Amino acid sequence: MELVTSVADFSAALDAHRAAGRSVGLVPTMGALHDGHASLIRRAGADCDVVAVTIFVNPLQFGPAEDFDAYPRTLDADLAVAGAAGASIVCAPSVAEMYPAPVLTTVHVAGLTDTLEGASRPSHFDGVATVVAKLFSMAGRCRAYFGEKDYQQLAVVRRMSADLSMPVEVIGCPTVREPDGLALSSRNAYLSADERAAAPTLHAALRAGAAAVEAGETDPAAVRAAMGAVVATEPRLRLDYAEAVDAATLAVPARLAGEVRLLIAARLGATRLIDNLGVTVPTSPTHGATEPRKAGHACAGA
Amino acid sequence: MELVTSVADFSAALDAHRAAGRSVGLVPTMGALHDGHASLIRRAGADCDVVAVTIFVNPLQFGPAEDFDAYPRTLDADLAVAGAAGASIVCAPSVAEMYPAPVLTTVHVAGLTDTLEGASRPSHFDGVATVVAKLFSMAGRCRAYFGEKDYQQLAVVRRMSADLSMPVEVIGCPTVREPDGLALSSRNAYLSADERAAAPTLHAALRAGAAAVEAGETDPAAVRAAMGAVVATEPRLRLDYAEAVDAATLAVPARLAGEVRLLIAARLGATRLIDNLGVTVPTSPTHGATEPRKAGHACAGA
Repeated sequence: MELVTSVADFSAALDAHRAAGRSVGLVPTMGALHDGHASLIRRAGADCDVVAVTIFVNPLQFGPAEDFDAYPRTLDADLAVAGAAGASIVCAPSVAEMYPAPVLTTVHVAGLTDTLEGASRPSHFDGVATVVAKLFSMAGRCRAYFGEKDYQQLAVVRRMSADLSMPVEVIGCPTVREPDGLALSSRNAYLSADERAAAPTLHAALRAGAAAVEAGETDPAAVRAAMGAVVATEPRLRLDYAEAVDAATLAVPARLAGEVRLLIAARLGATRLIDNLGVTVPTSPTHGATEPRKAGHACAGA
Repeated sequence: MELVTSVADFSAALDAHRAAGRSVGLVPTMGALHDGHASLIRRAGADCDVVAVTIFVNPLQFGPAEDFDAYPRTLDADLAVAGAAGASIVCAPSVAEMYPAPVLTTVHVAGLTDTLEGASRPSHFDGVATVVAKLFSMAGRCRAYFGEKDYQQLAVVRRMSADLSMPVEVIGCPTVREPDGLALSSRNAYLSADERAAAPTLHAALRAGAAAVEAGETDPAAVRAAMGAVVATEPRLRLDYAEAVDAATLAVPARLAGEVRLLIAARLGATRLIDNLGVTVPTSPTHGATEPRKAGHACAGA
């Protein structure tokens, strides 16, 4: 496995692979690699001839009160994880290499970025979109693999890549979870043992929301309440948001329909955790005042 | 010469050229091609194996009161100009092809865009940066040729490409002028005969500003006044701005030094014209109260 630290070396290496007819898979990360990242690298290796992993803790996407300085930096361990999962090349540039001059250029994706994480983290998604645009430019034509764990980020990156006709196919991959349901996250390392024990309640809340939708609930407020009720059972958790939104637009519809995404964020001590889950609204109406009684009856139990 | 109208065909064609070892030169235009564009195409042909010209009147960079609908569209004539100048491929996509969905993504370059053209055309440079980012993504690794006529645009595009590590070398090319000094511009077609006769006064004003700098004037306000005095001799011209700025940052310094750019914009009837000129501040001081008298004397007449 090749390790490069310069933007030019990375671009040249991937150009050379493509010139030799090899397809490129890209896995952009902030390091602190865990099994979730490893699953992205393995998936990229299954799809592509060459897997490039970038490791860069991007200052642009951290707010002034956030954990940029404290964010875990574990390059040696990361290289071991990347190599074991099948990476061909790792690019781990410094901040000075990525941003040699003040960054005057910002990539902004409207609409998808002002709710959910965007509401509590102003400019976070501008930082994400800007660095991913840069990483995509550095990488050139490729498939790029992102975890669904950061679902809103995936939606933002996918839209940016399409709007700007980037030669990148953005591929979302399922969230990897601990046996008790906790989504893998580099920030889980911040949790105390007590907090770790409480953390799976987030996933339990999402499952309760999904169960409500699957049982026929189409009122976003009711699904939100179902998730909130589960979070409330764990006094260590302070809920930031729990929402049921359209999976494509991330907007809260008047009535849930089609593909729905449930998203949740909460603080656990000093750590902020996020998670999400997809659920499909049953096509056959099972209840609801506006539905004919017979249809509701016919589908009872669906 | 090949004509394509789809983003995918354009990208595939240039990928194929690169795969065959050919270098690509890109000349992005809004059509209405004139000798200025032809000079860019010829320069690209001298530097690169393949010259790609894009023709797209980009709605994003026109303000609501600007001339998007009236902007000249002359595809057949443009193809003749491009072919004669040596273009290998022309991409002329429709607005629906370039923007099949509402464009949620905006590329913004701070600092360089809030003065000069940016002051009177809010969001213009966001539209420019966004479409050029998209054209660069479509084109892939290349050299891209822009006229110095739109000097601020050139600075914005150059900075954007560097900030985002795009695989594009941005090359500025000298403005092509009529024998009387008028810079070639698609908008010159809007001028009446009377207005056309008055238009070279813009270039005369820039030359007066450059002469002042070359004579040792380092006060931006004095250079501005020298340009304004020439514009005032032509009653048809209504001056928008005349500025002497740092050639790299586009900021007005306290004292001019090094590479200076003089930029001017004025209305002539219903048409808005812009032009600019580079000038270097003489390295030997020729005057100024803070300079020792001997040094000033030694260099008198420089």
